[in-house]
Formats: sequence, structure tokens, C-alpha cells
Amino acid sequence: MTSQDETRIRQIAAEMRDAMVAGDAEAIVGQYAPQMVKYDLAPPLRNVAPLDAGALKTWFATFDGPVDYEIRDLEVVAGAEVAYTTSLHRLSATPLGSSESFDLWFRVTVCLRKIDGDWRVTHEHSSTPFYMDGSFGAALDLQP
Amino acid sequence: MTSQDETRIRQIAAEMRDAMVAGDAEAIVGQYAPQMVKYDLAPPLRNVAPLDAGALKTWFATFDGPVDYEIRDLEVVAGAEVAYTTSLHRLSATPLGSSESFDLWFRVTVCLRKIDGDWRVTHEHSSTPFYMDGSFGAALDLQP
Repeated sequence: MTSQDETRIRQIAAEMRDAMVAGDAEAIVGQYAPQMVKYDLAPPLRNVAPLDAGALKTWFATFDGPVDYEIRDLEVVAGAEVAYTTSLHRLSATPLGSSESFDLWFRVTVCLRKIDGDWRVTHEHSSTPFYMDGSFGAALDLQP
Repeated sequence: MTSQDETRIRQIAAEMRDAMVAGDAEAIVGQYAPQMVKYDLAPPLRNVAPLDAGALKTWFATFDGPVDYEIRDLEVVAGAEVAYTTSLHRLSATPLGSSESFDLWFRVTVCLRKIDGDWRVTHEHSSTPFYMDGSFGAALDLQP
């Protein structure tokens, strides 16, 4: 456990949060390694293509104004070359054409590798659980 | 990257799969560290309690006969002390009282730490994506 590594990884999480609020697609993409496995909130099951700043910009443009973003319960486990974080995230935004904003809490696992002396995200898994009551609806109303 | 660590971690994944098919709750629990953050298919958002063999046995007992379990696209990234895996999992089972079995594909991230010389699971994140088409249903029909 290297405290310096944990500090840097917490800084990356804070930078990602700030880039979400600023709508800064390039700053977000810059934190990821080119080779990455991504499990997203939306289908498909698995993405292996590099993160695309253009697609992120298109996504930001689906909202009326900036999004709000919060990261809570961040835990960091860092070795010398491989690290991971767990955290709960809140995304709040107003879809274009809607009069109502939403608040969505979801879980995020971020895995990182130290590449050329700095940490890069090599895997990200974002999800909500789903209700097993027969509705099989995504559990979008949960709060930490 | 230590090839011996990757081999051991792949063996743990295979042992977990075999323990699922055998319904061996103790063998599953034995792979986890006592301190763990778990993001499950079902709510809540976050579990931090140690994995409980009794609860697992109760879960196995909700099915008519053994479950079938498959792990695909397993990728292992192992440092000296911290490692993670990504993989797609298929659970097939017949709920008690049902005449039909189900097949569920989901994504799993497993994070591990080397503790007392062997690898233990310290975080597990299992999920399906959900449809953002307005139904907000869990995407239970996806296949790799």
C-alpha cells in the first residue's frame, strides 16, 4: 500500500467528477487507457472499444444544462502496479425537452494500472441492481 | 505481471464456477476475504457484510436441482498484491415451483488482494445493464 498512489487515485476520481460537471469530454477520456473493458449502465453487456470524446459530447448534449455529479464512499485499494476503487455515484440532470430532473445513484468499480509512471483507468463497471420481484425493473430509486 | 499469480487467479475463478454447480456454499465463501464490498445483482446498492454461507445455502435451495454456471471472456490483470478480473457469467436454473428454467448473462468484476500468501476476493461487482428506452427494465436477455 503506497499512500502516494492512493492520493493520486483519489485525485483522479475528483478530476473525473469535476470533468463531468464541466462537461469536459476530453478531460474524462484522458484518464482512460486506450485498451479498456467497460461495463456500462446501458447495453451492451460489454464494451471494449476505446472511450470516445465525441460520443461523450453527444451524451452531454442530451441534457438541458450541466449535469451534477457526486462520488461517495470512495474506497481505494492500491498496489504498486494495479489498483481498484469502489464508490457510489449520483448523476443529476434534466433531459432535453423534459421539465423534470432526475437523480440516479449507481455503483462504480474502477480498476487502474500504472502506465508510464501514472495511473490510468483500464476497467470501469457502472450499474444499478434490479428488482427480483417479478418486475425485473432497474432499481433506480435506491439511495446510499 | 506475474504469470504464477494469473494462473492462481484463473484457478480461483474455475473453483468458484465448480462450487456454484456443486452448490458448495462453504467453498464459495472460502474464496472471499472477511472484509469485502459487494455490489450484487439484487438490491441494496452496496453490501459490506461478510459473505454468509447460510444465506448462500438458502439461495441454492430456491432452485429445483443444481444450477448451471459458465464463465466466459475472463481477463486477469495481476500485480504483486492487487489484481482484478473481468468476465461474463451465465447462470441457468429452474426456480422451485416453476416449470421453466432461465438463462441469465451478467458481467462480473472481481478484485483480489494477496493475503498471507494467497489471493482472496475483496470486492465483487455483478450486474446487468438496463434499457434506457423508458421501460427501465433490467436487460436480462443479452448474450455475449
